[in-house]
Amino acid sequence: MSQPALQPGDTIGILGSGQLGRMIAMAAARLGLKTHIYCPDPGPAFDVCATFTLAAYEDEKALAAFADSVGVVSYEFENVPAPTAGFLAARRPVRPGARALAITQDRWDEKTFLNGLGIPTAPFARVDNVASLEAALETLGRPAVLKTRRFGYDGKGQAIIRAGDDAASAFRSLGEQPCVLEGFVSFAREISVVGARGVDGSFAAFDVCENEHEHHILSRTIVPAQVSETTAAAAIETTGKIAAALDYVGVITVEMFLVEENGSDRIVINEIAPRVHNSGHWTIDGAATSQFEQHVRAICGWPLGSPRRHGRIEMGNLIGAQADAWPELLREPGVALHLYGKHEARAGRKMGHWTRVLPEG
Amino acid sequence: MSQPALQPGDTIGILGSGQLGRMIAMAAARLGLKTHIYCPDPGPAFDVCATFTLAAYEDEKALAAFADSVGVVSYEFENVPAPTAGFLAARRPVRPGARALAITQDRWDEKTFLNGLGIPTAPFARVDNVASLEAALETLGRPAVLKTRRFGYDGKGQAIIRAGDDAASAFRSLGEQPCVLEGFVSFAREISVVGARGVDGSFAAFDVCENEHEHHILSRTIVPAQVSETTAAAAIETTGKIAAALDYVGVITVEMFLVEENGSDRIVINEIAPRVHNSGHWTIDGAATSQFEQHVRAICGWPLGSPRRHGRIEMGNLIGAQADAWPELLREPGVALHLYGKHEARAGRKMGHWTRVLPEG
Repeated sequence: MSQPALQPGDTIGILGSGQLGRMIAMAAARLGLKTHIYCPDPGPAFDVCATFTLAAYEDEKALAAFADSVGVVSYEFENVPAPTAGFLAARRPVRPGARALAITQDRWDEKTFLNGLGIPTAPFARVDNVASLEAALETLGRPAVLKTRRFGYDGKGQAIIRAGDDAASAFRSLGEQPCVLEGFVSFAREISVVGARGVDGSFAAFDVCENEHEHHILSRTIVPAQVSETTAAAAIETTGKIAAALDYVGVITVEMFLVEENGSDRIVINEIAPRVHNSGHWTIDGAATSQFEQHVRAICGWPLGSPRRHGRIEMGNLIGAQADAWPELLREPGVALHLYGKHEARAGRKMGHWTRVLPEG
Repeated sequence: MSQPALQPGDTIGILGSGQLGRMIAMAAARLGLKTHIYCPDPGPAFDVCATFTLAAYEDEKALAAFADSVGVVSYEFENVPAPTAGFLAARRPVRPGARALAITQDRWDEKTFLNGLGIPTAPFARVDNVASLEAALETLGRPAVLKTRRFGYDGKGQAIIRAGDDAASAFRSLGEQPCVLEGFVSFAREISVVGARGVDGSFAAFDVCENEHEHHILSRTIVPAQVSETTAAAAIETTGKIAAALDYVGVITVEMFLVEENGSDRIVINEIAPRVHNSGHWTIDGAATSQFEQHVRAICGWPLGSPRRHGRIEMGNLIGAQADAWPELLREPGVALHLYGKHEARAGRKMGHWTRVLPEG
């Protein structure tokens, strides 16, 4: 379904009021667009938008009014309820679309989709009960990672099952939900590709990011990743292939593991995020176009911007009390500090990030 | 009067809802600060702030509530009424302060202040009536420029008096207000220095900007200005001297003429803007710290950021219908487009700008 492109002055609708919605809203404002944020909970995006709606994702009256007020709908998180997305999609373009949401909401569907494209993932098996978990452990060995099919992020909804661990109690600890068991991947490094696909099918990707996690939360990103040109090109090509197969519009992020084999790197897809991504935050200060502007351009039906990088990049997250270092970070020349305006620095909460752009060489 | 520095999560108050207030609000949001915009007229800054007040500058009840809600007050334009500034300053720090406002609101006071510091301006004379205008024309010669002492900007409140022009009708055309007559300066180029002074007296300036105007409105800025190192250093030193003499806090801009004399450039001050400035818009995309963040840092009592430039800069304003070129500008790789979200592209209205950051060399 072809839709007219948005015009400056038009309004984009965003589901979710967190820091990603906030940074999308700020990128939209740079381009003369208004933002309407919809969320059941108030969050930092409410402070930078022209309009917000505080209502449940099941509130059809509020959703209808929201849809009427915007030219396009997007979201900052992949767990948008399918009925909400469907209700909105009947009224306005929802970008990325329903297929991207459905597939990335379910680890089983996502891995099956990827393997169907010939793209490798960790070996995995479907787990619906303790019996199928025991069988999967036989096949995939230990250690292995049990993950809920839905609603996992930042290490939530996961349990490692090591030699001697009780499978039934691991399954119970995740609430006996449908799960997948993933075979353990002994990776050398973690990378991500933040790409974007336009309404016209054009594709552009930022340089490959290399990521370090602590306690399952992104801690630091360096760009370019320390990988061969061949690996970098393959990572970007794979991301473009995934985006095309999903008929995707907007920024897409693909997290990958690199496994060393016979002196070269084999790419294994970890997961797809149908949205802007923490590992792309450096683009605000370190690229010709930020991932947030790129997303706005794509969902508005506008041409994608240049992903050119300004230098070597280091990006660090400020998690919980790490944000207390803001005065020192403000004093460091060449550090770009971003704080998300969250009230409470709870443990594990993403409070901000910093970016250093260093000369190439 | 020493004041505690603001903390992330605090609110800054801005008088004025135009594009400068909007870009200050966006810089504040990056740093986790909220913004409260106060203006008698709705404007594009309302779309990116946590709170706004639509009220007259004389509404003391609204002003008191505004002051109560913020940690510091600043403004996007120099013509803040003195009683408004005074009312607010009794409740919260107003930065830049009352002295900077008073002096820059009146061309006579400003030029007298500058000459008192030993800083050259165009030759000028005070004009209160036709007789003093005739006398001033005798002294300064023709052509000369008659300007209202107060409330002039972008060429408004000015009249050139050439040979044969009737002095009385020029004075009438400006409403017979108190004026200054300025002797004509035959300048080779126009430059500006965008600097910032912190609460602690620290000073930092961006590289000197070279400006072209069309119909008295800034059209294009290139950075660095094509001037000698000596001239650039003198321009920045002069700006620092002015800021120190005003006990200034925040971003200050000094517009200067360069007059060629005996093969070198003589600096003549055109005017002081006690605020962020159109010629500094390139810093959003082209400097380690934007002028807007620099202003926020200064008024919050935070350390100034690095003014380091990323490359050679070209910045162009989009005036009125020039903003219709937005689709072409979006398509040009490496152009950063900014649109201000104004509804109507009236002639002479600043609708947006673009910045190109080119490699040094």
